[in-house]
Amino acid sequence: MSSDSPMRVTAALLVIGDEILSGRTKDKNIGFLADYLTAIGIDLREVRVVPDDEDGIIEAINALRARNTYLFTTGGIGPTHDDITADCVAKALGVSIDHDPRAVALLRERYPDPKDLNESRLRMARIPAGADLIDNPISKAPGFMVGNVIVMAGVPSIMQAMLENVTPRLKTGVKLQSVSVDSGGLPEGIYASGLGAIQKDHPDVIIGSYPHFDGQTFRNQIVLRGRDVTALERAKIAVEAMLKGLAENDKTIPL
Amino acid sequence: MSSDSPMRVTAALLVIGDEILSGRTKDKNIGFLADYLTAIGIDLREVRVVPDDEDGIIEAINALRARNTYLFTTGGIGPTHDDITADCVAKALGVSIDHDPRAVALLRERYPDPKDLNESRLRMARIPAGADLIDNPISKAPGFMVGNVIVMAGVPSIMQAMLENVTPRLKTGVKLQSVSVDSGGLPEGIYASGLGAIQKDHPDVIIGSYPHFDGQTFRNQIVLRGRDVTALERAKIAVEAMLKGLAENDKTIPL
Repeated sequence: MSSDSPMRVTAALLVIGDEILSGRTKDKNIGFLADYLTAIGIDLREVRVVPDDEDGIIEAINALRARNTYLFTTGGIGPTHDDITADCVAKALGVSIDHDPRAVALLRERYPDPKDLNESRLRMARIPAGADLIDNPISKAPGFMVGNVIVMAGVPSIMQAMLENVTPRLKTGVKLQSVSVDSGGLPEGIYASGLGAIQKDHPDVIIGSYPHFDGQTFRNQIVLRGRDVTALERAKIAVEAMLKGLAENDKTIPL
Repeated sequence: MSSDSPMRVTAALLVIGDEILSGRTKDKNIGFLADYLTAIGIDLREVRVVPDDEDGIIEAINALRARNTYLFTTGGIGPTHDDITADCVAKALGVSIDHDPRAVALLRERYPDPKDLNESRLRMARIPAGADLIDNPISKAPGFMVGNVIVMAGVPSIMQAMLENVTPRLKTGVKLQSVSVDSGGLPEGIYASGLGAIQKDHPDVIIGSYPHFDGQTFRNQIVLRGRDVTALERAKIAVEAMLKGLAENDKTIPL
């Protein structure tokens, strides 16, 4: 299915910030957005993390917005010199950028004394032409959506609030359903060939096998995902039957 | 500085797996690798997360290995049908791939009974031509390094062991030093213009400002990074002097 299909809505996430790549800040937005988009029927297809570098940000914006229904960005919309996301989005889309009167009005609520609303803070009102604002209930400085690009803050609580606020404007697809089957202690190497055959027989279902190692033992989960609940159920039954037929195999070897 | 400079060694990370993008598994490798590489003097310049899709993996491998000293990958090297990383690396590099006798020998240690070492498990011995193996002390199936591409497991404990084992083979740069200055409650909007001026005056130092919101108050850290300790110290003194000059400003507004 192409990303234009009415059933399938796709997204990419661009995480912007030196601090994630240096390890100083541990990203909390990728996992949150992945869960959130999956829940509302949008497929997250790619994530990139790039530094605060104009050329790299613009290249990533253009690559990712072209091949997905939506591109979400996090980070780089504060008042300091390293906050260059809004300007990069404008350049990538080839639109102008200026202080947006709606955003300035929001900042005036936050900074009622005119001397507090200095040039740096006004940077947070720089919004590309044609954008719709996204409310920020925590610190007022808005996110925005322009074309198919959704620009959000990097601070997780603000990002999450902006994501909630922009959701009603998004088209969503048929939710990808997911079911898990525990391998019951069977190692991946025992069921891998049977699972591969089931994947071939059920092309509408995406089947993955995920070993988790807790330091002592592996615990394997087989995850089946798909939009057609009946097809999903059929594949699940096939996996369970396959595992049952292998139950007598050696379970002492983890993979 | 280019990535060929003896002082600067760069890396990208490619995280491979549907399970990260669906939210089912929360990545723990990005933050770990970011900390680890920073500590040994390698700059992590970009991260991508892609699904288990051959074309997308090959495209990302070729984009990232071309512009960095090293490309690290995590995930997709187990025995099941969705484990396609090794084959994608071979295709991206244009080299052949087959069962590697050294890897088969390692798997024989793990599966001494020949009937246990079935075709699926032997997939874990598929290694691109010309690769050096990377020991896996936990489950034996090795990672490998071929050209400038370092292929590791997705399970965090195994990834971390492989990273330790490959480190002696890597060239490392001059470590990027980092110092932090707490804004002492000053909001970003008050010091942003002064900080921008200091950044302009100290081009060898990378200066960022990072607000952290704990649900009630913002706490801003100014982080300075650079390879020249003297330049770093000079910039730090400038930041501290600037903050001191602003200390009388309103601290009740967070940004």
